[in-house]
Amino acid sequence: MAARTVADLGEFGLISVITAGLRGSDAVGVGPGDDAAVFTPSGDVAVSTDAMVEDVHFKRVWSGPHDVGRRAAGSALADLEALGARPVGVVVALTCPADTPADWATEFARGVEEECGLAGAVLLGGDITRGDKIVVAVTVLGDLQGRTPLLRSGARPGDVVAAVGRFGMAAAGLAVLARGFRSPGAVVRAQRVPEVPYGQGIVAHDAGATSLIDCSDGPLADLGHVAAASGVRIDLDSAAFDVNEAQKTVAAAIGGGDPLTYILTGGEDHALLGTFPPGTVPPGWTVIGRVLPSVEPELVEPVETLVTVDGAPWAGSDAPGWRHF
Amino acid sequence: MAARTVADLGEFGLISVITAGLRGSDAVGVGPGDDAAVFTPSGDVAVSTDAMVEDVHFKRVWSGPHDVGRRAAGSALADLEALGARPVGVVVALTCPADTPADWATEFARGVEEECGLAGAVLLGGDITRGDKIVVAVTVLGDLQGRTPLLRSGARPGDVVAAVGRFGMAAAGLAVLARGFRSPGAVVRAQRVPEVPYGQGIVAHDAGATSLIDCSDGPLADLGHVAAASGVRIDLDSAAFDVNEAQKTVAAAIGGGDPLTYILTGGEDHALLGTFPPGTVPPGWTVIGRVLPSVEPELVEPVETLVTVDGAPWAGSDAPGWRHF
Repeated sequence: MAARTVADLGEFGLISVITAGLRGSDAVGVGPGDDAAVFTPSGDVAVSTDAMVEDVHFKRVWSGPHDVGRRAAGSALADLEALGARPVGVVVALTCPADTPADWATEFARGVEEECGLAGAVLLGGDITRGDKIVVAVTVLGDLQGRTPLLRSGARPGDVVAAVGRFGMAAAGLAVLARGFRSPGAVVRAQRVPEVPYGQGIVAHDAGATSLIDCSDGPLADLGHVAAASGVRIDLDSAAFDVNEAQKTVAAAIGGGDPLTYILTGGEDHALLGTFPPGTVPPGWTVIGRVLPSVEPELVEPVETLVTVDGAPWAGSDAPGWRHF
Repeated sequence: MAARTVADLGEFGLISVITAGLRGSDAVGVGPGDDAAVFTPSGDVAVSTDAMVEDVHFKRVWSGPHDVGRRAAGSALADLEALGARPVGVVVALTCPADTPADWATEFARGVEEECGLAGAVLLGGDITRGDKIVVAVTVLGDLQGRTPLLRSGARPGDVVAAVGRFGMAAAGLAVLARGFRSPGAVVRAQRVPEVPYGQGIVAHDAGATSLIDCSDGPLADLGHVAAASGVRIDLDSAAFDVNEAQKTVAAAIGGGDPLTYILTGGEDHALLGTFPPGTVPPGWTVIGRVLPSVEPELVEPVETLVTVDGAPWAGSDAPGWRHF
C-alpha cells in the first residue's frame, strides 16, 4: 500500500492530525482552528519571521522532518532570546508538494512542537499550501514582560563580549554532509538541530547586557552587525572558544586544518552573543572578546571588517557569514 | 544594461531599499532591522499566517508585484478583521529566485505597505531567502483592545447571516484570466487585489455579532466552517446577493450562465460574513440568510452541506470551496 500523501489527507485532514493533542498554554486564549489565534501578553510583544527552503537550507536526504521542524522553530525562537523576550508561541506556514508523505508533514509539526516545548512556547496556528519545494516560514511571538528589548545598538567601548551556546558545530556538520559523509555524529546532529540556550536572553538582560544577538551567520558577521549598529569595533580572543574534538577531526580531514574557521564564520548553532559592562557577565557565559571605540564613524561594508580576531583582521579560509543570494 | 536582480542587490541591500522611508506607528517600539520587532498592544494579541505561492495562488504574467503584495497582505489582514481585532503590523517571509528583478521585490514590499496602510497597520519586519519559486508568507498581528475575539463557534439558531464586501468578483476574474482574457477590467482587477472591508470586524463585534469569518473560500465553504463550529445549519437567500454586470458578462460568455456560482463558491474577495441576533445588523451590512438548528449533531463532511441556498442544497456547476491539495 502506498504511503498517504498530503494530497490524500487534504489540508483540513492534515490540520486535524497536527492539532490533535497539541499542548495549550495559560497565555493562549484561542489556539489553532479559527481565523486567528489569540494570546495574552503581559508586556510588549516581540515578533520575528524566518523561512527555510528545501535544498537551500535543508535537504530531505540529510534531515528527517522532525529535525527540520526543530531547526525551523529553533532558529526563529533564537531571535526572541536575542531580544530578552519570553517565547509564547509560533505560527507556521508550510508549503509542500502534493506528493509529500503525510507523515513528513505531521512529523515536521511534531518537531516544531517539541522545540517550542523547550522554549516554553506553543504552536499557535499555521497554514498549509501546495508548492514545488518545501518552504517553511516560522513566525515567533514573544512577551517582553515589561523588560526593555535588548537591541544590537547598545554595545559600548569598554564592554566585554560574552557568549553562551555552541559555535561552529553546525558548520562542521554541513562540511561533512556536503561531502557525502555521515560522521562524526556530533557535528552531523548539530547541523540538523540547533541548540538554542533558551532562557539565557532574559538572564543576559537581567545581568545588565548592553546588546544581544543570536549567532545565525557566525560571530564575525553577527558581531559585525552589533558593531555597525552600535558604532564600535569588536576584538575577539580566539583562544576563548572551545574547540570540539569532532571539529578538529573534520577540519583536519576536509577543512584544511583550522577548526576556528567553522567557529568564527559558521552560523546556525544559534548561540547568544552579548556585550556586558565588565564584571556583569552572568554565570555560564564565556568572555570571548571586548568592545573597542570606533576608528571611523562612517558605515563600513562588509560589517565583518569591524570585528578583529586577536587584534588583527581574520584571514580564515571561508568567506565570512552566510549569504542568502 | 540588464535590470538589477535580488542577487545583485543582496539580502541586506534589498532590505535597506525596502525599509527606507517605511512608515512607523505609535504602537511600534522597534521596527525592522534588529533580531525581532516590538509593539505595544493594549489588549490580547491576535495572530494569523498565510502563504501565497507563485503559479498556485498567483502568476507573474497576471499580476504585478505591487498587486501581489497588496493581495498577500490583504488576505492575511482579513483574518484579523474576522476576529474583531485592530491590525497593528505584519511580518513577511519572501522566498524568491536569485534572478528575480530587484524591482519586483521592492514593488512587492510597497504593495504590502500600501495594503497595511489601508488597514491601519505597518510593515514590522521580514526575511528574504532564495528559492525556485516565489513564496510569500505573511503573518499579521492584531490588537483586540480589550474585546472578546469573535469566533466561528458562536452562531445560534435564530440569528441572521449578514455580509459586507464583495462576492465572486475575484472568482469571475480568475475564470477570465485562466482563459487568456484581460477583461472585463472590474473582475480582473478584483482577482489581483481583494477589497477587505477594514474596520468592519470591530463594527460587527460592537453591534453584537455572535460569529464572524472572512470569505476566503466562498460563502458556502466559509459559512460551512461557521455552521460546523457552531453546531447549526445555515440557509442563504440567493436573491440577497448583488450580481455585478461584469459577473453576468463573464458567466454568460464562459461560465455556463449562472453568476451565482462565482458568488457562492468563489473566495478571495475577503468579504466578512457574520451572524447577528435579529435587529442588530450594522449599517452597510446586507442580510443574506439565517441560522437554523442543527438536524444531526454529529460532524458532517464536507462542511458545505451544512449550508443550503433558498432552502435546498446548492447544485452549482463548480465544486464548492478552494482545495489546497
